[in-house]
Amino acid sequence: MQTDDNTRHAEKMARIKAARDRMMQEKQGEKGLVIVHTGKGKGKSSSGFGMILRCIAHGMPCAVVQFIKGAWDTGERRLLTTHFGELCQFHAMGEGFTWETQDRERDIAAARAGWEKAKELIRDPSIRMVLLDEINIALRYDYLDLDEVLAFLRDEKPPMTHVVLTGRNAKPELIALADLVTEMEQVKHPFRDGIKAQPGVEF
Amino acid sequence: MQTDDNTRHAEKMARIKAARDRMMQEKQGEKGLVIVHTGKGKGKSSSGFGMILRCIAHGMPCAVVQFIKGAWDTGERRLLTTHFGELCQFHAMGEGFTWETQDRERDIAAARAGWEKAKELIRDPSIRMVLLDEINIALRYDYLDLDEVLAFLRDEKPPMTHVVLTGRNAKPELIALADLVTEMEQVKHPFRDGIKAQPGVEF
Repeated sequence: MQTDDNTRHAEKMARIKAARDRMMQEKQGEKGLVIVHTGKGKGKSSSGFGMILRCIAHGMPCAVVQFIKGAWDTGERRLLTTHFGELCQFHAMGEGFTWETQDRERDIAAARAGWEKAKELIRDPSIRMVLLDEINIALRYDYLDLDEVLAFLRDEKPPMTHVVLTGRNAKPELIALADLVTEMEQVKHPFRDGIKAQPGVEF
Repeated sequence: MQTDDNTRHAEKMARIKAARDRMMQEKQGEKGLVIVHTGKGKGKSSSGFGMILRCIAHGMPCAVVQFIKGAWDTGERRLLTTHFGELCQFHAMGEGFTWETQDRERDIAAARAGWEKAKELIRDPSIRMVLLDEINIALRYDYLDLDEVLAFLRDEKPPMTHVVLTGRNAKPELIALADLVTEMEQVKHPFRDGIKAQPGVEF
């Protein structure tokens, strides 16, 4: 009985493996991807950061531009600048969350400086991945020109460079242009129960 | 006109900031969270990995147990073992994706060994976060006893320890018990266009 179960399981798994191997063999293309993480749930920035660290682990030069600098970036920033400064550039352009500065013109200037830096980094063919953290916020408030960003990604991004754009409320036109889009949906959040942001989890 | 816009913006942002400051002041609680990342989209493991690295950045001891070891874990594993072995333990217990081993009994034994290791790590009060990567797969195939896992998280987890459980198809009972749940929803994936898994993005 136990052996029968095992045999059936082995046969089923062998079929799945054969189908999967065939599928993977057909996927031979490589290209630099436009990747979007959006939605209200957690994990948009931290999985972007996870990809940057995968690049570092593979020795691939990469860069981060932070468009909205909050108090919660300390972990990422410290780790990247302390341990991996040679492989990964880190540029924090934002002044804080927009409701903390209360100065629209300064926010716009910071977002535009961030985008100029982003273009320079993306154009550099030695850099394999550029993370534009929270750029969707800057696009949503029209601090950056959406058409200019889309045109740059479409026409000027080197073909093998990955660009990761994070932040809630991604513009539909950006989603249409992207290769890989994930929506992080919030199912449950402990803030509702009076739990504050904690190190390791949120920053 | 420009100045009026700026004034209105500053007033609006000041109101948002005041509301946010009040909200944050009410959130004073701290507790170890049960965190679940599920869904079919990307980012479940990489954002778990991102949280582990935030812990490392804060000098908080932490640990990873990988329940399903695939070819795609090379980046994470290399980075953790090469750079941060003192702060973070890494245990790869799985033998591969289940369809690659085709041996149910061996898979079950590997999953149970992983769970024994997980309990030991979670019980250790010096460890602040334990990532149980892809444990949802082991629970889905009934390689682990769901009730035992739930009872342990509810009754034996030290109150300040965070436990992160990843993998698609999280059990509803686990979602009910968790404090923080995010569903990664796949909006677009380049596999559909014949693009293979690439370093930095998938592994």
